[in-house]
Amino acid sequence: MSDTVGFTSQDSATRISMGNAITAEELASREDRASEEVARYALILGDDSLMLAQRLGHWISRAPELEEDVALANIALDLLGHARFLLTYAGSAWDKTEDDLAYFRDEEEFRSARLVEHENGDFGQTIARQLIFSFYAYALYSRLLASTDETLSAIADKALKEVDYHRDHAAQWLMRLGGGTEESHRRMQTGLDTVWTYIEELFIDVEPTTQLAEAGVAVLPSALRDEVLTQLSTIIEEAGLRVPQAKGAFGADRSGRYSEHRGFILAEMQVLAREHPGATW
Amino acid sequence: MSDTVGFTSQDSATRISMGNAITAEELASREDRASEEVARYALILGDDSLMLAQRLGHWISRAPELEEDVALANIALDLLGHARFLLTYAGSAWDKTEDDLAYFRDEEEFRSARLVEHENGDFGQTIARQLIFSFYAYALYSRLLASTDETLSAIADKALKEVDYHRDHAAQWLMRLGGGTEESHRRMQTGLDTVWTYIEELFIDVEPTTQLAEAGVAVLPSALRDEVLTQLSTIIEEAGLRVPQAKGAFGADRSGRYSEHRGFILAEMQVLAREHPGATW
Repeated sequence: MSDTVGFTSQDSATRISMGNAITAEELASREDRASEEVARYALILGDDSLMLAQRLGHWISRAPELEEDVALANIALDLLGHARFLLTYAGSAWDKTEDDLAYFRDEEEFRSARLVEHENGDFGQTIARQLIFSFYAYALYSRLLASTDETLSAIADKALKEVDYHRDHAAQWLMRLGGGTEESHRRMQTGLDTVWTYIEELFIDVEPTTQLAEAGVAVLPSALRDEVLTQLSTIIEEAGLRVPQAKGAFGADRSGRYSEHRGFILAEMQVLAREHPGATW
Repeated sequence: MSDTVGFTSQDSATRISMGNAITAEELASREDRASEEVARYALILGDDSLMLAQRLGHWISRAPELEEDVALANIALDLLGHARFLLTYAGSAWDKTEDDLAYFRDEEEFRSARLVEHENGDFGQTIARQLIFSFYAYALYSRLLASTDETLSAIADKALKEVDYHRDHAAQWLMRLGGGTEESHRRMQTGLDTVWTYIEELFIDVEPTTQLAEAGVAVLPSALRDEVLTQLSTIIEEAGLRVPQAKGAFGADRSGRYSEHRGFILAEMQVLAREHPGATW
């Protein structure tokens, strides 16, 4: 299948990620601690990656091709890597580890957007979700490179190379499904229509992004909106598909209200760690 | 946790695998086709890796630490890689692709051993299964390097480096759990006792291994038995655990009888491909 879109398993996400010297362990051993505000910002970014990694993990035995099994697993691993960096850094503000933050926060304490918590649906819907998130993440990390916070800038540098691949991967599937059979076109369009409902939440200037952006530390979410929507519209049209009408973000702003899926994701993710704290049994 | 066993996420399985030049796509484009016998042998090896990869994939959102999530996912990816090579090569005998063989064979046509199809159980049981399989696979591939079949030898060369890491990973967890708390010791012992029941099947000289081994193409399974059991016994005792009594292989010989789990694994793995043959929808 790879020749259809010029994408082979050699373009593996991990191939790109291997060049990075920094590891989550090294980050944890660094001296620089995040301030409370920066930690809260890092959680917003990290929780998105964590949740999406969990969702993608479910495709591992269920993709339409063995090659795609491998590709989605690699993307999930990359996202898990980003989450580990961001949660490790966030934890430095409160003397908590990445595992404390991943496994011992309650449902309402996560800051992930509804988009990444949304159900996988069929393969077309998963690709639609990947498309939106990876274009958003690329725009985000490419600006975060200039952050005055050196750790955030280093994390962005690492994540950017991988998210660039995720963007290509999703775009190539978009083309393939959009320009494939009538059925593949219909499913890809339905997938886009379904997840598009959640796109605006990514661009809401939740606290503490506004004050951190003014200080040159964070990227203002609303500043990404035009760029991301324009890029997405262009590529969706190029694939012969229709750009869905942007709707509201269902009042979600990463705080009070969150998706009904979050509890289910966390139940799976947290059960072992909570049964056996410290994993020492 | 990594300092306990001197194992960090930098020792990632994919870090090792990145150096390999050969890919499943390149293998598929090679001229050399497997004979019917070699193809049947390749299926025995490939199906083991495929089934174990599927089983391990289920840990991805459920490991006791984020770092371990990443490690198990990387091991699953390595195994999926080995399966792809072996199934691609097997398929060359019948003009079938790796996907044909993974997604369109029926339950009774798989040749995987019961050990790899066995339920994950708790983390201790999964580690016990990994321990046995990776020591077996290391012994197997290190001898298969000398195969007179160049493709099998090249696949063994690639797999060996990765399986070496899998062996270390399982052994380090064995030490950590065996020498941890009373509860971790108990669970690790129970895990070993449970999966040990399936060990003998790995060493049965099923067809067509005997004639292929005489021709220098395959490795005779029974020839691996003493080496693998001795290595496992040594390390299990080193971890302060008891070597289970070897029982029979429940009459299983990778052919007529197979585990009741196989159908469940295949149902998950094959549903999408079978609903949408060719993944074109």
